[in-house]
Amino acid sequence: MTGLQIFGLPGLAEVQAGDDLAALSVETADAAGTPLQSGDVLVVTSKIVSKAEGRTVELADIVPSPFALAWSEPWGKDPAVTEIVLREAKRIVRQVGPILITETHHGFVCANSGVDQSSSGAKGRAVLLPLDSDASARSIRAGLAAAGLDIAVVVSDTFGRAWREGQTDIAIGIAGIQPILSYIGQVDPHGHEFHVQALCIADELAGAAELVKGNVSRIPLAVIRGHSWEPDDTATIAPVLRDQSRDLFR
Amino acid sequence: MTGLQIFGLPGLAEVQAGDDLAALSVETADAAGTPLQSGDVLVVTSKIVSKAEGRTVELADIVPSPFALAWSEPWGKDPAVTEIVLREAKRIVRQVGPILITETHHGFVCANSGVDQSSSGAKGRAVLLPLDSDASARSIRAGLAAAGLDIAVVVSDTFGRAWREGQTDIAIGIAGIQPILSYIGQVDPHGHEFHVQALCIADELAGAAELVKGNVSRIPLAVIRGHSWEPDDTATIAPVLRDQSRDLFR
Repeated sequence: MTGLQIFGLPGLAEVQAGDDLAALSVETADAAGTPLQSGDVLVVTSKIVSKAEGRTVELADIVPSPFALAWSEPWGKDPAVTEIVLREAKRIVRQVGPILITETHHGFVCANSGVDQSSSGAKGRAVLLPLDSDASARSIRAGLAAAGLDIAVVVSDTFGRAWREGQTDIAIGIAGIQPILSYIGQVDPHGHEFHVQALCIADELAGAAELVKGNVSRIPLAVIRGHSWEPDDTATIAPVLRDQSRDLFR
Repeated sequence: MTGLQIFGLPGLAEVQAGDDLAALSVETADAAGTPLQSGDVLVVTSKIVSKAEGRTVELADIVPSPFALAWSEPWGKDPAVTEIVLREAKRIVRQVGPILITETHHGFVCANSGVDQSSSGAKGRAVLLPLDSDASARSIRAGLAAAGLDIAVVVSDTFGRAWREGQTDIAIGIAGIQPILSYIGQVDPHGHEFHVQALCIADELAGAAELVKGNVSRIPLAVIRGHSWEPDDTATIAPVLRDQSRDLFR
């Protein structure tokens, strides 16, 4: 049987600022009895990337702006959190009732700029998205390469979407593998130019990994084995971010 | 190693109207040396469901409306296809340049009402989405049950999305398994109510299956083995379809 094997790497301890996620991934995989192999795709939940990079903020240190204060009050929101969300945003895409959909400085469209309180490891602290999630992925890939492993890395987060209920894990950073597989110009067996122009493999990999991570059981590392990919160290998540000029829904 | 195995079922012949997809799936899996097992999730590309159900239209039989004619001409589109797209739509969500994003009668928001020319099996023919994709999934699940197999079924299609480039496979019909896994009310290890409220497992399963289907190699059947699911024959895709009153992007 060819195909994919997808499995989580349980047993990772709470990640601390400064931790080396490449080394921790190798150790966790070894301890779990499923050592990493060249050719694997490693999907890393952004929360542990943020923690390793120290991208956490103490709410007590934040002075909310008048706008953050005024908007938070009627919705019972913590104005310090709102302030952080606004600072992480390039612009607000929708602000309706208690909902705040923003475009982050990276160009991700998501709720609350991806700022997360629940995974912070402590009340009164918020976890921000990595500053440069491609650089985070590249750093992990480089660390694995130093251990002799040629592994593609996807940094994932859990985002909502338009039109459909339920969230899914998608890719916010990538290294070693192009995020989009293009069929443009290819012709299908019936002579039509291919109807699917480009598949976002990165998001499908991230979503597939979520199936074995479990958000409550909180396994932040997953391996996808058997996916055929061509190593490409120029890869970034940028091709996935639709430019606003091409976007009918922003 | 626990986790998932995901593999395609190659070798299925061109599907014809009236074909029994449950029986064909069993035969194809057996012939591939990977027999289906109770507990599997079978992901079926909607195109073969449509073909089996006769949901194809000869373009020559279509009389385009004045609106379809007028809009198609400047964009070099086939007005018969446009007419079919309009008939398959409940409403038009965006019509900008040559792009037509509609809400289908089922409630899916997608390009061209999901009408597809490339997979039709012949030029001059279009493939429509299944009339009732949950019923399609239920019918396949029932056929598998008759063969002694308790298998969840996801009918998938390849859709674009807002904000992000590249398409992904998502679920348009489901049987035997709830599409959304809710964490509402659960508390994370730090005492916060869980930040992810609900994950759309159905879409993650569909996207994971796409990774082994390959749109060019055209393997329309994939198996996900090892996913833990609770059989529920009341399941439908309806909970995934965000009501327009709750949708900020429609």
